[in-house]
Amino acid sequence: MPKLDLDAIPQTNATGYPACYADVVQERWYRRLAPASGIEDFGASHVVLKPGAWSAQRHWHEGEDELLVMISGEAVLVDDNGDTLMLPGDIAAFPKNDGNGHVLQNRSDAPCSYVVIGKPAATDCHYPDIDMHLSAEIGEQRRKDGSRFDDAGAA
Amino acid sequence: MPKLDLDAIPQTNATGYPACYADVVQERWYRRLAPASGIEDFGASHVVLKPGAWSAQRHWHEGEDELLVMISGEAVLVDDNGDTLMLPGDIAAFPKNDGNGHVLQNRSDAPCSYVVIGKPAATDCHYPDIDMHLSAEIGEQRRKDGSRFDDAGAA
Repeated sequence: MPKLDLDAIPQTNATGYPACYADVVQERWYRRLAPASGIEDFGASHVVLKPGAWSAQRHWHEGEDELLVMISGEAVLVDDNGDTLMLPGDIAAFPKNDGNGHVLQNRSDAPCSYVVIGKPAATDCHYPDIDMHLSAEIGEQRRKDGSRFDDAGAA
Repeated sequence: MPKLDLDAIPQTNATGYPACYADVVQERWYRRLAPASGIEDFGASHVVLKPGAWSAQRHWHEGEDELLVMISGEAVLVDDNGDTLMLPGDIAAFPKNDGNGHVLQNRSDAPCSYVVIGKPAATDCHYPDIDMHLSAEIGEQRRKDGSRFDDAGAA
């Protein structure tokens, strides 16, 4: 059946962020759509941000494009341009290696949801606002000096 | 600016279908999002189907996955399973080479819109309901016996 039964797809709030940076994504609940639907050419996630939650720490990928389609509720897209309101039907594109970190923040008092499409991250990811870096070679988030967080991968 | 200004992206109802099969897509108005936004890893289109319009002739691709996110209005997804109503927030996935042709039909009296994601078609496309086939090698729609439509590419 091509139409996805979202309720049948496992939802998780898992994150690889260390605890010191994970608080903002604790109420980010997502479903991986590609494995559930049999598609392979790109990844896709259905994401619910509860009030206060962020899509991620503000970041940009060296080697992967992302496209985001707002479905319900509202969120604030924060990037180097400032704040931009995202409402249902709004679309945002984050081209690879543009050096402009982005994050969606739910500052409203209701959940919002969106679908985000992109290839699995296989290159470095940069976090301009915090002391964290994802090295593709190392495969986990570390401090910018390369040192490990004490709870790496535990949050 | 990551948020796309849809009004600034050219909208077209162009089709490569021959006239005999093009009537259903005359009121399919789409915008190509990837070139407008600088993304390259996959293609994406924002599509408006006016009342009566179809997303395409019912089809399936040998080599490209597709993912569709409904934004507004309603459409009927037709595939080998029958009819399935698609409402805002509904998501459908069309895995490559599954042999299950799909089409969205707007049978309502108002426009509907969606975003569809996929790689540019580089493999054969099959149309189970009509005498048409897209051969990747030939690069245009022809009859299933390989003969050209008199107005190929003109519709």
